[in-house]
Amino acid sequence: MMENERWILPDGIDEVLPQEAQVVESKRRELLDLYRSWGYDYVIPPFVEFLDSLLTGTGSDLDLNTFKLTDQMSGRLMGIRADITPQAARIDANRIQAQHPTRLCYLGTVLHTRSDGFAGTRSPLQIGAELYGHCGIESDIEILRLMMETLNKTGVEDVYLDLGHVGVFKGLAEQAGLNKRQETELFDALQRKALAEIETLLASFDIAEEPAAMLLRLGELNGDKALSQAREELKQASPKVIEALDYLQAVADQIAQWLPDVPVHFDLAELRGYHFHTGVVFAAFVPGNGKEIARGGRYDAIGSVFGRGRPATGFSTDLKNLIRVAQPELQITDEMVIFAPASEDPALTQEIARLRGEGHRVISALPGQSGGAAEMGCQQQLQWLDGRWQLISV
Amino acid sequence: MMENERWILPDGIDEVLPQEAQVVESKRRELLDLYRSWGYDYVIPPFVEFLDSLLTGTGSDLDLNTFKLTDQMSGRLMGIRADITPQAARIDANRIQAQHPTRLCYLGTVLHTRSDGFAGTRSPLQIGAELYGHCGIESDIEILRLMMETLNKTGVEDVYLDLGHVGVFKGLAEQAGLNKRQETELFDALQRKALAEIETLLASFDIAEEPAAMLLRLGELNGDKALSQAREELKQASPKVIEALDYLQAVADQIAQWLPDVPVHFDLAELRGYHFHTGVVFAAFVPGNGKEIARGGRYDAIGSVFGRGRPATGFSTDLKNLIRVAQPELQITDEMVIFAPASEDPALTQEIARLRGEGHRVISALPGQSGGAAEMGCQQQLQWLDGRWQLISV
Repeated sequence: MMENERWILPDGIDEVLPQEAQVVESKRRELLDLYRSWGYDYVIPPFVEFLDSLLTGTGSDLDLNTFKLTDQMSGRLMGIRADITPQAARIDANRIQAQHPTRLCYLGTVLHTRSDGFAGTRSPLQIGAELYGHCGIESDIEILRLMMETLNKTGVEDVYLDLGHVGVFKGLAEQAGLNKRQETELFDALQRKALAEIETLLASFDIAEEPAAMLLRLGELNGDKALSQAREELKQASPKVIEALDYLQAVADQIAQWLPDVPVHFDLAELRGYHFHTGVVFAAFVPGNGKEIARGGRYDAIGSVFGRGRPATGFSTDLKNLIRVAQPELQITDEMVIFAPASEDPALTQEIARLRGEGHRVISALPGQSGGAAEMGCQQQLQWLDGRWQLISV
Repeated sequence: MMENERWILPDGIDEVLPQEAQVVESKRRELLDLYRSWGYDYVIPPFVEFLDSLLTGTGSDLDLNTFKLTDQMSGRLMGIRADITPQAARIDANRIQAQHPTRLCYLGTVLHTRSDGFAGTRSPLQIGAELYGHCGIESDIEILRLMMETLNKTGVEDVYLDLGHVGVFKGLAEQAGLNKRQETELFDALQRKALAEIETLLASFDIAEEPAAMLLRLGELNGDKALSQAREELKQASPKVIEALDYLQAVADQIAQWLPDVPVHFDLAELRGYHFHTGVVFAAFVPGNGKEIARGGRYDAIGSVFGRGRPATGFSTDLKNLIRVAQPELQITDEMVIFAPASEDPALTQEIARLRGEGHRVISALPGQSGGAAEMGCQQQLQWLDGRWQLISV
């Protein structure tokens, strides 16, 4: 590596410099305070865990996206977390173990081997909230409202929601009698909305005409009218599918009540990225960003691999990405910075301590330093005038 | 792995649960606000970097303590940071590039392959501050005062300081004409204060009597009188050594002025853990803790490997460890939590939003949930009384 290349960071790994870091820190506090006020307890899960703990029950997507390490102390394989949600579920199942509903929130860096996540980064600053121990639309709606409040507080505007339900595809696949391999192949083709391929696949599967037709339609059921279309066109589907569609309708009705200004789209086939979800799923989008900016949904029973399955619903997002998306709306207030001369006068020391204690920024000059108050970005400086230290403009 | 073992974390890797996490978060804010008020800019360096960037110029201790990863996108080796200080130096050298003094602070998890750091953990929450671009005692003292202020704000009491200077051993080794291998062997023995071994080594090195005697004395020069002893006993040392001792005396004088209540010890040989330091080094201890709880010092020119060497001084500590050390002093204020019934009454929704906006914690009941207000840890609940929603005690 050339000497002048030593500062180059790996693709998708970024660092946050002073001005932006200040915004990240202030939004971080605002959001954690928001979650706290809704009753969510902050937890700090570890950055690495044994691979078994990290990946059990989460699917192969997350596995491929997880960096692996050998633990020199135990000789066992560890993983760097690629998602904090399964860690929160483990904490609920094994560390908190409450009977009543448990609300947890978290914020931390996750790493991905590939940049397929939020906005091409491989190191999102994941922030999110999870609600365990309640099975019903009220907890899904609480999480959905908190996700929208998160976007609102960060200054993200023109958000629309995409709703789906894992039960629709699962139910139709079951009804069609697809085996595991067929289901996976069809699922992949559906994610790519490759309609011709879906048709060819379905024809090759040797299944009844009606379920095949419904599965084919699934690839086209997206948009703001997709739910009513589905309720019309999937009338012959199994009760599981009908139940999922009814649930989606109820969620849409609640959104109309709680978040009347938020446009809702439906996508009944797009389930990529929902690694362990079992029920309703939702994603938030803004115009001009192909990737969702936040995502969540129901993932009941994930805790069972840790010995205690509970209903669960939650959302998460990448705080750094939210701030970049909201950038034009962010007002960074120019705060006053005060320059203090290099002096050991106890009266000056006292005055500096007083100003800092009041929340002001005071930078002490260092003897012989290059640059004065203006170069140091200070608007005021302390000066000895009329027998006391006073603030004067630079 | 047994199902019921899936929650076991690797040795030295820990997670922080709600009550402690709340304390970590509140201390985190207090400390970052403190650094900000002293003019330190917050930066967020990445969790992983290419190994060359992370380790260049830092010594083999840090290398052994760094987890390595293969970047699948570039095929190159990356490391998980084991110390944030070199990252901050890189940011000063390559991203900020100011002529005047630059002050940076940071907070983040680092990982160690072995638990030889703070209090046996392998995942400290490192917090620290660094000052670049000033060569002189004033910047060392500013950093030292900020380190002590950090311990003070975290509630750590009975702190004493250990002072040393890399120049003492380096100067004596140079004076004795030790080659690199000899210097390393002697350094290792000195860290273990293995006096017999030091004597044998020195005898085998074939060096002049006087420098050998001084190097042997070094292993015993520790305690509160060690500096005056050294100034007496190392009179024949090279100017480099005398300069280092004079600098230490000046630092001790400044500490007596700024921090009159803090006991100061000297240790002129103990330099383990100071991977890249070049001048004065200091560590903070509390009674009953063998390991230092914070550490810092001068490390000029580290940025030169990134194309721009500048004078540098800084300190860092493990916030989780500080909180554990200070535990008996920590007052966790019991805050009021309010339980709200499950109801879609717009007046209730409004009242909940108002209370949350005022900073109160309000937990919404979920229909059919197990546990009521008391089980959910609430002291008050909202109830419809006399035509409005009112707070009543649980």
